[in-house]
Amino acid sequence: MPPPNLLKEIRNKGLEHSLAEADRLAYSRDCSSASMIRLRGGEVEILPKIIVWPKNNQEVSTLLALANTHQMPVVPYGAGSGVCGGAIPIHKGIVLDLKKMDQILFLDEKNLRVRAQCGILGEILERELNRKGYTLGHFPSSIYTATLGGYLACRSAGQLSTKYGKIEDLFHSMKVVLATGGVVDCSRDKEAWFSELILGSEGTLGVVTEAELHVRPLPEKRKYVGFQFESVAQGLEAIRLFMQKGFRPAVVRLYDPLDSFIFSTHPSREKNNSSFSFIPEKIFSFLGFAKWNSLQMLLLQPSLLNKAIDFALKKSLLILGFEGAAWKLDHELLGVQQICKREGGKSLGEAPGLQWLKRRYSVSYKMSPLVNQGFFVDTMEVASSWTNLAKLYEGVKSAIGQEALVMAHFSHAYHDGCSIYFTFLGHALGKEKTLKQHRRVWDKGMEASLKAGGTISHHHGIGTLKAEAFVQELGPLYAWWKNAKAVLDPQAILNPGKMGL
Amino acid sequence: MPPPNLLKEIRNKGLEHSLAEADRLAYSRDCSSASMIRLRGGEVEILPKIIVWPKNNQEVSTLLALANTHQMPVVPYGAGSGVCGGAIPIHKGIVLDLKKMDQILFLDEKNLRVRAQCGILGEILERELNRKGYTLGHFPSSIYTATLGGYLACRSAGQLSTKYGKIEDLFHSMKVVLATGGVVDCSRDKEAWFSELILGSEGTLGVVTEAELHVRPLPEKRKYVGFQFESVAQGLEAIRLFMQKGFRPAVVRLYDPLDSFIFSTHPSREKNNSSFSFIPEKIFSFLGFAKWNSLQMLLLQPSLLNKAIDFALKKSLLILGFEGAAWKLDHELLGVQQICKREGGKSLGEAPGLQWLKRRYSVSYKMSPLVNQGFFVDTMEVASSWTNLAKLYEGVKSAIGQEALVMAHFSHAYHDGCSIYFTFLGHALGKEKTLKQHRRVWDKGMEASLKAGGTISHHHGIGTLKAEAFVQELGPLYAWWKNAKAVLDPQAILNPGKMGL
Repeated sequence: MPPPNLLKEIRNKGLEHSLAEADRLAYSRDCSSASMIRLRGGEVEILPKIIVWPKNNQEVSTLLALANTHQMPVVPYGAGSGVCGGAIPIHKGIVLDLKKMDQILFLDEKNLRVRAQCGILGEILERELNRKGYTLGHFPSSIYTATLGGYLACRSAGQLSTKYGKIEDLFHSMKVVLATGGVVDCSRDKEAWFSELILGSEGTLGVVTEAELHVRPLPEKRKYVGFQFESVAQGLEAIRLFMQKGFRPAVVRLYDPLDSFIFSTHPSREKNNSSFSFIPEKIFSFLGFAKWNSLQMLLLQPSLLNKAIDFALKKSLLILGFEGAAWKLDHELLGVQQICKREGGKSLGEAPGLQWLKRRYSVSYKMSPLVNQGFFVDTMEVASSWTNLAKLYEGVKSAIGQEALVMAHFSHAYHDGCSIYFTFLGHALGKEKTLKQHRRVWDKGMEASLKAGGTISHHHGIGTLKAEAFVQELGPLYAWWKNAKAVLDPQAILNPGKMGL
Repeated sequence: MPPPNLLKEIRNKGLEHSLAEADRLAYSRDCSSASMIRLRGGEVEILPKIIVWPKNNQEVSTLLALANTHQMPVVPYGAGSGVCGGAIPIHKGIVLDLKKMDQILFLDEKNLRVRAQCGILGEILERELNRKGYTLGHFPSSIYTATLGGYLACRSAGQLSTKYGKIEDLFHSMKVVLATGGVVDCSRDKEAWFSELILGSEGTLGVVTEAELHVRPLPEKRKYVGFQFESVAQGLEAIRLFMQKGFRPAVVRLYDPLDSFIFSTHPSREKNNSSFSFIPEKIFSFLGFAKWNSLQMLLLQPSLLNKAIDFALKKSLLILGFEGAAWKLDHELLGVQQICKREGGKSLGEAPGLQWLKRRYSVSYKMSPLVNQGFFVDTMEVASSWTNLAKLYEGVKSAIGQEALVMAHFSHAYHDGCSIYFTFLGHALGKEKTLKQHRRVWDKGMEASLKAGGTISHHHGIGTLKAEAFVQELGPLYAWWKNAKAVLDPQAILNPGKMGL
């Protein structure tokens, strides 16, 4: 129970709240693999003491001022689809769920901006914009289970980010409630330094309650194409070349050989359309084994398994999606296709892109069936410059590969680099061993990423999962990071224990 | 003289330096109007005690550590073309001139980035890039007299920023020497929050010694066109519409009626090609007076003068410059021309654009002849969203217009707004009165900008000139700004007295 005085004040201020165990349970976890492994193993994470649902900025301010006085931790919460433990109330305290602040405040058609409360779900925001003829252009695979606040808290990237940018590129301004209850507004135009400090801070420095974002008219035209390359390197070179020519497909996804294989053999009409649930089956049929437990045995020797796959599979699938004005799209498509062919790509037509499009949102929150079978599945997204990318890919792949089956795709391309999205599948007996093995994958993967000079996170955030690596990545800047925290949140009530704070 | 101990240590460390009065005089000023008025009035600004020319990062670090120990102010100095007093050593101390750190460290053709020391002049950096087939795409009118460090310190904008972005958009990473002598690296990819704090901080939080920036291949094709609109509002609407359609001309300059008039009657073969030197003559001939002193008399009643001009002149000139790949340029040109015509623009062909191109760099550092005649000339750049722009333009114009002859052009367009660049010409008898009148223009202009919700600076920086308005603009964020300073520069040695610090 929260301290009686605090509870009394929460009641007096008329803040909607719950002390019910069901609610506290529901807010004790996020969608991180470790959280899921624990849950499936029957372990209940640390429960928060109370859930509060503010209805407006004033209530957020009131609650934070109260929490600050009572030195009670506050975990801002959106839709709970984070995968790094960022929204887990590891120090108990108050969960501040923003989902009742879910209004679109205005659509400014003259400046092409939308302002909304941060509890709005991504998909609802996008749908409302579409109705008026606009798009945010932000399509994370978690769009159905992520809020605008979550986007900003983690510096989210959508699947079309190569054209539209990450959420920080779409950002114009926001309202931030500080730990002491003060409310400040900041914008990219006037206070970029403050805005950039808050963006991606995962609720550790302030609670973003409203944000204004750039929108665009809905694209006139869309077009998808696929290419097959002889190797990852060949595909990457094609991407680098068309990006540096100034072409901007919206979707750029280059699958490494195993990921390409899984993608290509994925049944498109499957009812439960999570690719993860197919991985064991597919790998297993690919390797000629007859039962799931054969794969479990293979996963006891992940290095060997990965090597066998490296030996057997070489080809790499590239999916490109274009959207925008017709005149531009046609030229872009032509230019990009020419480069892909020149670099050795074999055109596969529209089919792979349309297949991807159909199940683009099915991955993020549907991996639980696998966990039931004793597997763990997770993803790790790193990024680097073109010169460094092969080294980063090989380094992290081989590090993860010591512990789990690993595949990757390259997406969110830039003119000077790209992100790599690793998916890995491991298996261990029992919850504790599974958690340990899962942690080993992360430790090795993060170490390899730091060694190769990649950034340890591209768009999933830090949370607790990557906190140690984040501190290492910051190096001497960690002192200033801690100081920003000390200044903005002197009692350290905001989401304590996250991002190395 | 600097304290003997400090001087001894500077000598012991082998730092190149000068105590000569000629050097101290040369570094006592920048290109701000107030500085020029004082100089022309025979007043010497406060002299620094010593000039130091570091040759590498280590020497910058050594010097800062020494200054920190001796609590001696340090003013980082580039090429001295700032117009806001940012590089004037108002608290004496050490001027740290970075111009001997002027090397291009590498051109990374695979990632399309260039890394250079911050003392390099903008024009030399651009020329070297051009030789290799690349461009930075950054062309401030001060390109011959501004360093890379100056670009970053003021968040500079080039004349082609509508296509290429401001310097912060071209920024990838940098090396910063802190007040205590520590050296940190930060990048947009990993530590955006720290990078954004340093960018635009005018040497108050650290000294940027190296930076890595995005470059692009030289454009295939260039094309200029001009349009005449019946009013500023008509021209602005055309710009808004083509920007929101996704077109990105590199140059977008909409001159208000007086600026259009001055532009159109500017003799293109003039030897001293500063437009400022023509203003009095042109206005004067326009108004039918015969002598310069008539204009001086008119400037005693600036409100009347501005009103007469508003009454007489209505038409507004738009100059557009396109560059890039041929296929894209042709389409962009066509699309933008269609929109301009539909909105009432009359095509003027290539001539106005080519005329602008010829004297694009001639303004910034050639305004001194006017000052000799007892006039003061200055510029004020503000910015806002489209919805707010007319209000901002009218508000600031009428505020400045109470004290000086005022004209403006709109440039650096964005999809959601634009910058306004006011040029004003005033006259008063004697140095002190001129300084006071000049200050009044600024006070009134800044007040009007704040009132209209514009940002008080788009790309010239803050310095001392706009410090008060900057503090007002920051509002509650000013406390965090001061705190960042206190943490990064505990002895407050870095460029004290600037940016409200």
